[in-house]
Order: sequence, then C-alpha cells, then structure tokens
Amino acid sequence: MNDVIQLIKNHRSIRKFKEKPLNEEQINAIVEAAQSASTSSYYQAYSIINITDPKLKHELRQVSGQSYVENNPNLFVFCADMNRMMTSQSEEIQEKMKQNIENTEFFMMATIDTALAAQNAVIAAESMGLGICFIGSLRNNIKRVNDLLKLPKYVIPLFGIVVGYPNENPELKPRFNTDAILFENEYHLKKEAIEVYNKTTESYYEKRSTNNRKDNWSHQIGRKLTKPIRMDVASFVQSKGLNKH
Amino acid sequence: MNDVIQLIKNHRSIRKFKEKPLNEEQINAIVEAAQSASTSSYYQAYSIINITDPKLKHELRQVSGQSYVENNPNLFVFCADMNRMMTSQSEEIQEKMKQNIENTEFFMMATIDTALAAQNAVIAAESMGLGICFIGSLRNNIKRVNDLLKLPKYVIPLFGIVVGYPNENPELKPRFNTDAILFENEYHLKKEAIEVYNKTTESYYEKRSTNNRKDNWSHQIGRKLTKPIRMDVASFVQSKGLNKH
Repeated sequence: MNDVIQLIKNHRSIRKFKEKPLNEEQINAIVEAAQSASTSSYYQAYSIINITDPKLKHELRQVSGQSYVENNPNLFVFCADMNRMMTSQSEEIQEKMKQNIENTEFFMMATIDTALAAQNAVIAAESMGLGICFIGSLRNNIKRVNDLLKLPKYVIPLFGIVVGYPNENPELKPRFNTDAILFENEYHLKKEAIEVYNKTTESYYEKRSTNNRKDNWSHQIGRKLTKPIRMDVASFVQSKGLNKH
Repeated sequence: MNDVIQLIKNHRSIRKFKEKPLNEEQINAIVEAAQSASTSSYYQAYSIINITDPKLKHELRQVSGQSYVENNPNLFVFCADMNRMMTSQSEEIQEKMKQNIENTEFFMMATIDTALAAQNAVIAAESMGLGICFIGSLRNNIKRVNDLLKLPKYVIPLFGIVVGYPNENPELKPRFNTDAILFENEYHLKKEAIEVYNKTTESYYEKRSTNNRKDNWSHQIGRKLTKPIRMDVASFVQSKGLNKH
C-alpha cells in the first residue's frame, strides 16, 4: 500500500480543532486541488464559499446544530453552480439552455461535479496534516443557508467542510466488507453481507472510546429513516430552477 | 506543494490504455479507498460494479458512443444505492422509510456519497501510476445500463470510470482562475472572470497537440446546451423510486 492510499484509508472525520487557521497557501492548494478533479463536459459546475465572518459561522451553526460549524478555524461551503454557465451566455441562448439546466440530469451532473471537487479538497487538506468533517446538516435549513450566502438562481448549497489542525484522534469507523459494495457484471447483494456488517458495527459501537452504546448499522438506519428528514429540500431545489423536470 | 497535491493537480483524463489489466490487489486498494471516503450519516449509499465481461463492455460502449468504454483493461460503474439500506429492514420499517428514500434530499445525498467514493478511487488509482476517465455518457441511455447491470429498485447508475496503465500523455486542461470559483462569505461572480477564462481556453484549444480548433468555454457551453440532453433521465430516476417528491 503506497503513502497516498494509506492517507486515504486513514480518514476519520475531525470535529475538534486547534485554533490555528490555514494560511493562504494552504487555502489555495485546497481550492486548486478541488478544481483539478474531473468535471463533466468541462462545465465546472460548482462554487466554494469560504466562510470567514464569525457572525455568519454562528448563523450556520444554528442551521446545522453542530458546535464545530462555529468552532473551527476554516469552513467552506460547496455549492452546485449552473449560474456561471448561464451568465456566460446571451439571454437568447440562456432561454434555449433552460431545458437542460433545469432538468434532473443537470442537477445530478452538478451535484456529482461538486462532490468530486470536494473530495479532492479533502485529500489535499489531509495530505497537509489537516483534518476535516463534512457538514451535510447545512441542509437542515437549506433555504436559510442559501439566503445567508446570497446564492443566485441555479446555485444551491450542498454541504460544508470544516478544516483545521486536529485536536482529537478518533477511531476509524468500520466500513462494509467489500463483498457488500463491489459486484461483478451485475448487481447481486447478499443479505448475509448486511448481517456480517451488523456484527462488525455492533462490536465497534460497544468498544469505541466515546459515546459507546448497543447499536448496529441496521438499527441506526431504521431508527433514523422512519422519521421525516429535510422534506423541504425538494421544493427548495425547484425554487432555485433546478431538478424541475 | 507536497506529493499528494502534485498528484491531484496532475490529473488528466486518460482514454488510451496499455493492455495490462489491474491485479486483484490494485482493485481491492481502489475499492477500499472508495469506501474510506466520508459518507452521509454512515449510509454508504453506493455500489460499484466491476465490468469484466467483454460482451457487456461492448454493450456499454454502444450506450456511451466512446470506444474506450470497450477498449480498456478495467471498467467500474458507480451506482447510487439505497437498496442496501432498505434491504436491511423489515417490510414494516421499509414502508415508513419510503418518505425519505424516495425524496430529493436522499437522491442528492446518495449522489454525493457515490461521487465522494469515486473520487477517492480515482486518487488511489492515480497514485499507483494508473490513468482514469469518468464515463458520464453511460447516462446517454441510463435505462439500458440499468437493465444490463440488473440494478434493483433504489439503485441507479451514475457514471463509469475506466482505469488502466496510460498509453497517452495529454496536456492539462486549464481550469477557471480561483477568483471565478472561490468566494468569501457570499456569492459574487464577476463577469470578467468568465471573459478571462474564455481567453485562456481559446489559447488552449488553439495550441493543444490534438483536435485543435477555434473555440472557448462559453462557445462550447452555448453550442452544447441549446440542444436537449438526456431528457429521459428524470423519468428513469423516478421509475427507480428516487427523486419522486
């Protein structure tokens, strides 16, 4: 296993940071790494908002509910962005582009583009000894985040990433065995693969150093997903002109 | 700039490969790297189909229109997968989970999860001296890919990745200057940033060693997006139980 794969496999979410912020060179390296990811048809359909205003961080923490959305040296919000594509065209062409920009295919495409860029940013950050945590909980009130960041039509916030020097060293969280994720030529999920994983996660939750409990993957899924989650995201996305048909 | 960031910034899509396929150890490293990515709420909402059957590769090439979808040592199809989450539950709980699994928030979440995993796979592959190309053109006939791979309800193919030892050395394709992508605290796109980039891409298309032409980013966007693209993706996704409300 080479050093890069070692780095990737050593990923843990970091939620406690030292106070030291990133310097400009580090921020540039992270953003340029993000931009080096593959992008569908050269669209580069994303933007990154670097949150430096403490008041804004506080507001975003209110949305997320997570203290580390406020208490971090650096917070970046990753947005799917098709406004740049539209802005580059005359009004006449924009009108003809809407059929694509507003459909589900382009919503998928921009979401994928943004996530590929974000994961490159993560690996770049971790390669510099930094730790990160994705903040999907910004979608707890996606409209509020949108308004705070003054996002125009065709731009939506997908998630944040907090970055900084780690001030904790959490355990690795076990993933599914490969046979539950990787198939050959056709999809073939064995129920036993889930059972095996439930035993693995049971043991993980029992033994980990903090917040240990009796739990497993399936219980967690069932517990969470029987309650409605972020039911306003769909109408918000449509209100921004995306995923409309 | 450290070696990892150097590797990331050196990314080019590779479309011509030597015949030598990956060995099992390399495939495992790539898949385990994928699985090490962050995953929303521990869902791990993706599956990877390793395409080893030459007939299947040929069929997928028909969908894509790209010769390298057939002519490659290794092809992986990345799927957003919420079937695993559903399968782990009793029928009664599944019924209650549908409100989430079938909504846009979860479609976004699974798409993001899959793309984060894929980008880790890419970096792992490139760290071993391999080249890759994303194959979004599998969505040219997403229903056909779905049927060929026998994907169940709640699983959809997002894209492929071809992987192998590079047999070409294409130029780096210039990205937007950082000031067109990165904003501070609020979104603020300057039109000039697009104009600057059009000059950059004009020069790139004029000077590159193959397929050089008079073109720029805005022209390319306008030319492509005024024609309807993959208008069937939306109804396909809904037919699989996703993005329904």
